[in-house]
Order: sequence, then structure tokens, then C-alpha cells
Amino acid sequence: MAEKIILDCDPGHDDAVAILLALGDPRIDLLGVTTIGGNAPLDKVTYNARAMLELAKATDVPVHAGCARPLVRKPKDAAYIHGETGLNGLELPEPTRPLDEGHAVNWIIDTIMGNKPNTITLVPTGPLTNIAMAVRLEPRIVGRVKQIVLMGGAYATGNSGPCTEFNVQCDPEAAHIVFNEKWRSLTMIGLDLTHQALCTREYQKMIAAANPRLSGALNGLMDFFRSTYQDQEAFPDPPTHDPCAVAYVIDPGLIETRRCPIDVELTGTLTTGMTVADLRAQAPKDCTSQVATKLDVDGFWNLVAAAVRNLG
Amino acid sequence: MAEKIILDCDPGHDDAVAILLALGDPRIDLLGVTTIGGNAPLDKVTYNARAMLELAKATDVPVHAGCARPLVRKPKDAAYIHGETGLNGLELPEPTRPLDEGHAVNWIIDTIMGNKPNTITLVPTGPLTNIAMAVRLEPRIVGRVKQIVLMGGAYATGNSGPCTEFNVQCDPEAAHIVFNEKWRSLTMIGLDLTHQALCTREYQKMIAAANPRLSGALNGLMDFFRSTYQDQEAFPDPPTHDPCAVAYVIDPGLIETRRCPIDVELTGTLTTGMTVADLRAQAPKDCTSQVATKLDVDGFWNLVAAAVRNLG
Amino acid sequence: MAEKIILDCDPGHDDAVAILLALGDPRIDLLGVTTIGGNAPLDKVTYNARAMLELAKATDVPVHAGCARPLVRKPKDAAYIHGETGLNGLELPEPTRPLDEGHAVNWIIDTIMGNKPNTITLVPTGPLTNIAMAVRLEPRIVGRVKQIVLMGGAYATGNSGPCTEFNVQCDPEAAHIVFNEKWRSLTMIGLDLTHQALCTREYQKMIAAANPRLSGALNGLMDFFRSTYQDQEAFPDPPTHDPCAVAYVIDPGLIETRRCPIDVELTGTLTTGMTVADLRAQAPKDCTSQVATKLDVDGFWNLVAAAVRNLG
Amino acid sequence: MAEKIILDCDPGHDDAVAILLALGDPRIDLLGVTTIGGNAPLDKVTYNARAMLELAKATDVPVHAGCARPLVRKPKDAAYIHGETGLNGLELPEPTRPLDEGHAVNWIIDTIMGNKPNTITLVPTGPLTNIAMAVRLEPRIVGRVKQIVLMGGAYATGNSGPCTEFNVQCDPEAAHIVFNEKWRSLTMIGLDLTHQALCTREYQKMIAAANPRLSGALNGLMDFFRSTYQDQEAFPDPPTHDPCAVAYVIDPGLIETRRCPIDVELTGTLTTGMTVADLRAQAPKDCTSQVATKLDVDGFWNLVAAAVRNLG
Repeated sequence: MAEKIILDCDPGHDDAVAILLALGDPRIDLLGVTTIGGNAPLDKVTYNARAMLELAKATDVPVHAGCARPLVRKPKDAAYIHGETGLNGLELPEPTRPLDEGHAVNWIIDTIMGNKPNTITLVPTGPLTNIAMAVRLEPRIVGRVKQIVLMGGAYATGNSGPCTEFNVQCDPEAAHIVFNEKWRSLTMIGLDLTHQALCTREYQKMIAAANPRLSGALNGLMDFFRSTYQDQEAFPDPPTHDPCAVAYVIDPGLIETRRCPIDVELTGTLTTGMTVADLRAQAPKDCTSQVATKLDVDGFWNLVAAAVRNLG
Repeated sequence: MAEKIILDCDPGHDDAVAILLALGDPRIDLLGVTTIGGNAPLDKVTYNARAMLELAKATDVPVHAGCARPLVRKPKDAAYIHGETGLNGLELPEPTRPLDEGHAVNWIIDTIMGNKPNTITLVPTGPLTNIAMAVRLEPRIVGRVKQIVLMGGAYATGNSGPCTEFNVQCDPEAAHIVFNEKWRSLTMIGLDLTHQALCTREYQKMIAAANPRLSGALNGLMDFFRSTYQDQEAFPDPPTHDPCAVAYVIDPGLIETRRCPIDVELTGTLTTGMTVADLRAQAPKDCTSQVATKLDVDGFWNLVAAAVRNLG
Repeated sequence: MAEKIILDCDPGHDDAVAILLALGDPRIDLLGVTTIGGNAPLDKVTYNARAMLELAKATDVPVHAGCARPLVRKPKDAAYIHGETGLNGLELPEPTRPLDEGHAVNWIIDTIMGNKPNTITLVPTGPLTNIAMAVRLEPRIVGRVKQIVLMGGAYATGNSGPCTEFNVQCDPEAAHIVFNEKWRSLTMIGLDLTHQALCTREYQKMIAAANPRLSGALNGLMDFFRSTYQDQEAFPDPPTHDPCAVAYVIDPGLIETRRCPIDVELTGTLTTGMTVADLRAQAPKDCTSQVATKLDVDGFWNLVAAAVRNLG
Repeated sequence: MAEKIILDCDPGHDDAVAILLALGDPRIDLLGVTTIGGNAPLDKVTYNARAMLELAKATDVPVHAGCARPLVRKPKDAAYIHGETGLNGLELPEPTRPLDEGHAVNWIIDTIMGNKPNTITLVPTGPLTNIAMAVRLEPRIVGRVKQIVLMGGAYATGNSGPCTEFNVQCDPEAAHIVFNEKWRSLTMIGLDLTHQALCTREYQKMIAAANPRLSGALNGLMDFFRSTYQDQEAFPDPPTHDPCAVAYVIDPGLIETRRCPIDVELTGTLTTGMTVADLRAQAPKDCTSQVATKLDVDGFWNLVAAAVRNLG
């Protein structure tokens, strides 16, 4: 049976690939997409989410807009990576289906409380504001969610700062809330893992070839993403962060993990927004969080290619 | 026309008096009471709010339960002041009306968005978690609220710390959110003001005499409140904080204020939860926040007595 | 017998008056002046200290230069108040005596350790870097000093920030060190006190009239000081901070104080450098620190005038 | 020509090995040992330093005691690793030479200022309090020191906290001072490197065999060190931190390094005392700091064995 997931995202080039992966792989049942201001402002990422579903002919998947800004900190975006639209480089179809009514936070709560316990996986790939708000508004969701697999954080080197990752640094208080709840299972797919998911020209060619209808879009997406990562971050190829979280839900065998306590720094001058993973020793018995450490790179891109092929 | 208010509280001895004042004064139209964990845990303060309305024969006023804990910090309570029930010393009637459905945060949003702009006054007298959550879930409420008059903070000496007040220190992140929004008007009724509202034995006698049916309850309330303030805080009489906020809505002439920028410290070792009011110079032209500085003590207690008398 | 003091200062207009007061009042035995970067860079304040002694014909008083910058924070100065030289407005004589050899920190240590215990009063009127360095280099001085009477801090409103005073905020770590040592007695002459020591035109006339030889210098000093305080801080007359500390050593009857614990905030976003005085209740029995609360303004200026008169 | 070094340490088992290495290797000219409270209180580590020199028959090397405690933070020690004496497990000879007069901080300054520029290497292997004090007392030493090679910090996993190393966390403000000065060259020999320097039973046998007179001492030292690291930290063999810094001075070819900016976190709730190395990209051209990344383990222990052999 397919895994029911809620994808909470801020598309974003890599979120776009995550959407395609979630739609194309038969082992995922995408209950809905919720959006959060992050890579670009809320209105743009919400439009992008709807347009990506249109592109994938998945107009039955509901889209709910969420929080426009972080809990406490001033908003910032990542236009230097994703361009002004959040998805520069990509020509998107006009969405035909209107935005669904109801705030993402309330929809997340209602969906989790309305489904059987231990059946729904949360996959946040943007700042964690929506999830944190939902947890504080309805604390019982924590015990009902099957697992949370999030793209964010880093236990070693960061991107937005020496040891901070963009999503978590955007709303560190929200991340602090999420990482400090007692989920059945929380998996942090951080930069340690996603910087292994480089979309080389070979992998790009492979995924583009998998679906002639989408090849133009995929190439536009990845060409732009590569160019900003080369210019701004001195990467040869773009690390395709967000689909790694979906990939872990589909096939955990693709990603090695290590169980450890994780917390979020809120008061550091240099480190606010750092995910502090305690890797000094064995995790305590009751620790239910883990960090992703190693990716089966070939396996990952084959998974993406197969999903893209399925989209028709 | 009476002022429409939402009382967001955590009764609490002084919240109890605030409820009576809001019910008894004809210039207040109490749209509803929302509750927040603070002086005691959420279930207790919610029960106390319902029972106070029962005591005042105001069972038509809706009560909605709100957040059980602060956004980021661990919960704490003030049992050392208010006793285990939050209202020790007071024999309360069993509430006959069930708790209203719907989360306080959503009810606050719906009420504000469902009324005309600039008609509703928010009166928070506990930690600011509900208000902060409502602001982040529906940012448009900020522009629609007429004013916010809150009990919390201090620009000089604190109570829970050398320069921090209990409500704000309970959830400093929520307070940071509330104080940093652009309300039409925000009035901080802090300890600087409420420590002037001491319920001496004379004032207690006066308000108890105003209503024979309620005199036992009022005396029980104030006797307990006085005893803990004497034992724990070396006050001769209990500062009756929360009704000061309601009093300001009823008659701003009772309270002198000073316009100034106010912010909340979040990272201090000694000062987290301090409301930092900038009193160095004239406030900037566009500053819409003010701190309360001086209370007409006699006028205040007369107002309370008159309201209690009206309750019948 | 005259009180032996070490004046650790950063002249500065008000430091200049403090030097004159210490030299002119017979109840003070000024062992030496040490300098610290603060109101202006170290080389300027050291020159100013020497030139002030020259002006007062007190070339036998040693001057030792101290630390050029704060322990941890980046240096800043107060040129917006004191002008580029640190003593703008004042024509100073060229010092005839060379700067004494030896670092201020070592000289402070040697002087304290070389005198009998409980005989020397430290009077810091700038950032506390020298004193903190001396304490860490030779911890025994803490028990040997008779008392420390420092100009700095504020328990209510600040100047360099809403609740921070310039000297303490310049080097909060040094202040943290000094305030956390167990001195026999520490008196904080903060802004709460010194903002009462306004040099009105009447007081200026009085002190200038007290010494015809120095009247030009005193008027130049105070005219400039008044003009910057009017322009930059909206004060009608300049608060003459530093001589208040010397005045307290001469005649404690001029200044009311209150015993209380005092600590320094180091990690606040809004409050770093705040002196957090706990005024909530009676100070603990073993508390040896106090804040100055009320100045006998007339008595203070009469003291200054008498000292200036004595300088001949 | 031998490298002139000042060894600033807190012996400590690994400091003891560092002393032997510095004495035994002909490429090092040990100008003096200075001590700092850290692994054990100042009096104990100072005794240990003198006794180690006695053991090595190097009574001509001066020893100066330094600071007894960190600049700002409360002192702590590492008795759980090094035992009550700081060198438990080791029977030491009574030192015959008295402790040298003069504070370590002043001796460091005088030695650096009294030697030619660019000739002296500082090798701190404890908390950085002495070095920070010297820098603030005499800022010119920064430009005169040839290089500073310090044991402390970590760019990945910590020991005293998830991402903090003991020496730096003991006195983070001192470390902040040291890491933020513009040395000609600063090399951080952190846990990333020293956790590679495990003293296995084979290496222990080799160094003990190198000098029959010292073999008992070396075995006592390492047996105790191994037992606490096994019990307290789940290490199979003790990481022998401090001699790595001396080894780098002797033969930089033994240790790979990477140039990068390094700063120290002072305000984190979870991260205070973390050395934040920015490894995201190429270091800026003017960056003179570097972290040690990879140890030639065999080469290192051979170096130690040869030095021990030379001690006779």
C-alpha cells in the first residue's frame, strides 16, 4: 500500500523535483501539498506548487497555502539561488484549479486527525513554520503522525552560514518546536546527505530522457539551478535537496542514517539555526530522531527517473 | 455604545476580578473569554473561567480553550501565588454550560474577521501565546483590531526576575511577536502600573460590601491572594493586575500612559522576557505603543465596586 | 586623613571635572590617574589626563596608560558627545611631564599590593577593562581594596541603549568580571544618579567664578558639553557623570544609595551591557553592592566649586 | 636551528607527553612552561609541570604560573578524565627547583618583546586565558609571534558538548580574543585531529620501550588515561591531544591542514565555546588561520618515541 504523505514545501527547483517524484512513484499517495514562504514569498511558492501539479496533470491534489513568514524572525528568501519567481528557468502552465480554501495549518491538523493514527508521513522541505504551528494548535498530531521526514539542517557544514542550513535558519524557533517534540520517528535529511545528491549533466540527461513531454521543463529547471549553484556557491552541479526526503519515504534502503539526539540553537551569534546533533556516543534508547548520512546516488537518480517516466 | 472585547486570560485571582469587571461594567460588551495556560495549567484555568461566568450568572458568554503551553519555552505556572487550582481560596459553582467547541485561536480569528474593522479590543491578561498564534495564522487581524490592551511586562522592576514580568517571561517569543506587530494601538499595562493597584483591606471591604451575594467569594479570593503575596513577595496587599487592563478600556482617564517603542528580549541570560521600553526620548511619530505609568487608585477600585454591584 | 584613590578614567569632559574635584578637595589623596580607551581612543584620553593635571598644576600625580580596547567587543567611542579630541571646547596646556612607564594594570596591582589592605579606593569612570584585567592578573587585590566606587551602569533608563549605559556597554565582559567579584564594597554611580547632576548655567557660573584662572577652561568645557547633550540627547544641560563618583568618596552623605545585587547582561540582543540590579526585595545579608539613587544637587555643585577654588 | 616555543599548558596526561616531546626533540628549544587552570586547578597543574621537568631532568626550564580561572565564566576542571591530581596514575618526583617569580602573562609578554620578531612560537594546550590576557595587556605581541599552534576546538564533533571542546569551552571569551587577532599564522589542532592520535597498547609499548628509565611513568600515565577514556567517553584508547600541537611545530608534514576563517561562539545555548570554522568555500586570501584535518599516526608516535629516547 502506498505511503500517505503531506508535502509541505516552498517550490523552489528542488521542491519541484520532489513534487514530481511524489506524484510519479506508485509507492507514494500524495494527500496534498501545503506551502510555506521560504525560497520565495508565499504567493509565488503557492503558485509554483499549483503550476507544478498542472504540469504533472495532477490537478486533483489539493494545495493549501500556509504561513507567509517565520514565527519570530524577519522573513528572508533565497532568490539568489532560485531566482525571482522561485522557479526561474522554468516555463510553467497556468494552473486551472483554484487554490483550495482553508489554511495549510488547519488542513494539516484536520487531515492527520481525520485519518487513522500512524498512517500519515509528514514531508516538510521548507521552513518548519506550518508544522510548528500545527503542533501548537493541536498537540495530538504528534502522536498520530507515522513519521516526519524533513529536508533541513546539517550536522556538519552549512549553506546559509558556516554551520546552518537555510530552511532551519529561516525559522529556527519553528525548527526548535519540531525537533523537540516526541514524534514516533523523525528523520533529518540534511545537507550532509543532500550535498551528495548532485544533479550532474549525466543524471540530468537521464531524467530528462525519461519523459519527453517533461524534458524541456526538467532541463530548464536544472540548467538554471546549476548556474546559480556554480555562481553563488562554487558547486559544479546543483545539490537536489528536497526529493531526497521523498526518496527516503519510498525506499529507506537508499539512505543510511544514524540515530542521535538533535536540537536547534536559538541564541548563538554565529550558530542560530544550527541543528546540533549529538554524535559523540550511542544515542539513548528512547531517542527517535536520526540524521541521514549516506546516499545511494545512483539508486536515487534512478528512482527520480522512474517516477518522471511514470508521469506520462 | 459598549466596547466589544475579547478577554484572553488564565484565571488566576486577578483574572477573576477582571472577568467580574468586564461583566459588570455596562461600557463593556464581553464577546467571549479565551483561555491560555499560565497561572495554572490550561484545563484548570479553563474550568475557572467557566466557573467564574457561572458565579456571575453570565452563562451566555462563550469560553474557548486555547494553547496549553508556550511556543518555544517549557511551560511553568504560578501555583506559588494562585495555589494548585489557580483560584485557591474560592469556592466555585459547577459550570452548567459546556465548554465551547473550536480552538481559541480560530475563534479569535473568526470573531475579528467576522466583525467590522476597528471595533474589537483584545484584552490579554496571560501569556500571549494565543494572540501570537492568531496573528501568524491570520495576519490580517492586526489591522482589524481596534486596540490591544494587555496586562504584562514592566519597564522598571519585574516580578518573576529582576526585570521580567511573569506573563511575558512565560512565552517571550509570543510576546515578541505581539509587540512587534503594527497594531493601531497597543497599551502595555505592566507591573509599573499594576503594583499601584494594591487591594488593601479597605478596598477589599468596599468591593465585598458592594454585592452581598458575591462578598464571600470576593473575600475568599482576596484573602488567599493577600496571603501568598505577603509570604512569597513581601507585599502588604496583593497587586490586582488584570482588571487594570479592563479598567483602561472602560475609562482611559484612570490611567496615565507614555508613548514609546517596546520590544522583548529573547536571548538574555538575565533578561529574557524583559519588555524593553525605550524611554530615553520622545517616541517616534509613527509609534503606536504605550506603557501605563500611573493609576488613579481610588477611581479604579470604585470602578470595580460599581461593576460588582451591577452583577446582582 | 585623606582617602587614597586611584582614578581610572577616559577624559572626557566629565572625567576632567572629576580630576579637578579629586585634586582640589583636601579629603582626597589622588595616588595616580590611569587611562582607558572609552570616550576617545587611548592616546587621546591619556594626553587629556596629563594635560588636565598640567592645567591643575598637579604634575606630581603619576599617569599610566591602560588598555586600548575592550576585552572582547570591538572598540567604540563617544566622539558624538565629547568631540574628536575627547575634550573638544577646551584649550589645554602641553603636558611637561612625560607619561609614566608601566602599564596601568600592573601599576594598579602594584599600588594596591604595596599599600596596606583596606586603604585604597578605586574610582573607575570609564569602561572597566583595566580593573577587570587587574583582578584576573592578581585576584588578591579584590580583598585588599577598601571600596570601589564606579561611574557606570543604570538600573532604569540607559543612554547608549534603552537600558544600557555607555561605559558598561563598551566592555560588558569587563563589567561582568568587576560586578561579580566580592569587593568589601561596590557602589554603582549610574545614570539614575548622574542624570540628576545637570550642570545648569547657574551651576556653571558658580564653578567658573570659583577660580578666575580656570574659569575660561571650565566654561569652554561646559559650553561644548552642553551643546552636544542638547543636540544629541535632548538634555537641557549636561549630566556631569564622573565627578559624582569622586563626590561619593569625599562625602557619602551627598548621595543616597540602596543595597542590592547587581549583575551584567552579556548575551541579550537588546540588553547586552545592561546592569541588572535586583530591586524586588531586601538585599541578602551578604550583599556588598549598592546603587546610587538620589543626589543632593546643591551640595554636589558646592563641593565641586570649593575644590576648583582650592586649585589656585 | 631549533624552534623557540613557549608551552602554555595545564598538565594533564597529554600535556605531560607534550612536555616530554618538547624536551626530547632536538628541533624544539623550550623557552619556558607557563601554566593555566584547566584540567586541574592552577596549583596542581603548576606542580605537575615542575614535576614533569624534574622527571625529565630539565630543571633549567623556567615555569611561571598563570591565571587561576577563566576571564568571565566560572572555573571547571576535568577531574573525571585526569583524576584529582590532574596526573593520576603517575608517581612524580618532588620538584627541586622553586617556581619562578613573575606572572605567566607578564613573562610571556617580556619573552616575546625581548626576542627578535618572528622567532617565537606559542603552543597553548589548555584554556587560552593567559594568551588572551597577554594580548590585551601588550597588543604588540600579536605581530611579533612567529605562529601560534594551539590544541583546542573542533570543527565537527566535540567532547565537552556535542560541538564544543573542553579547552575552548572553559574560557570561550579568551578563545574569542585569540582567534580574532591577526596572527601571522594560527593553527588549530582540534579534536578532529587529536582523536586520530589514539595511544593504542602497541604505541604505548613502543614509547615505553624507548626509555627504560621513563617506562614506568609512561605506562602509569597511559594506563590511567586509557581507563578514564574507556569509562567516561567510550574510547578504546586515549586520544593524546596536546603533543600533536608540538609535533606540528617539529614537523608540519605530519599533519594536513586546511585554511579557513575560525571564530568562537559566545552566546549559544547549546554551542557556546564552539569553534566555528567556515569550511563552505575557499578561504579568503588574507586568512591566516587553519584547522588540522589529518594525522600521520605512525609518524606521530615515532616522533614521540624518538623524543622519549633522547631524554635519557
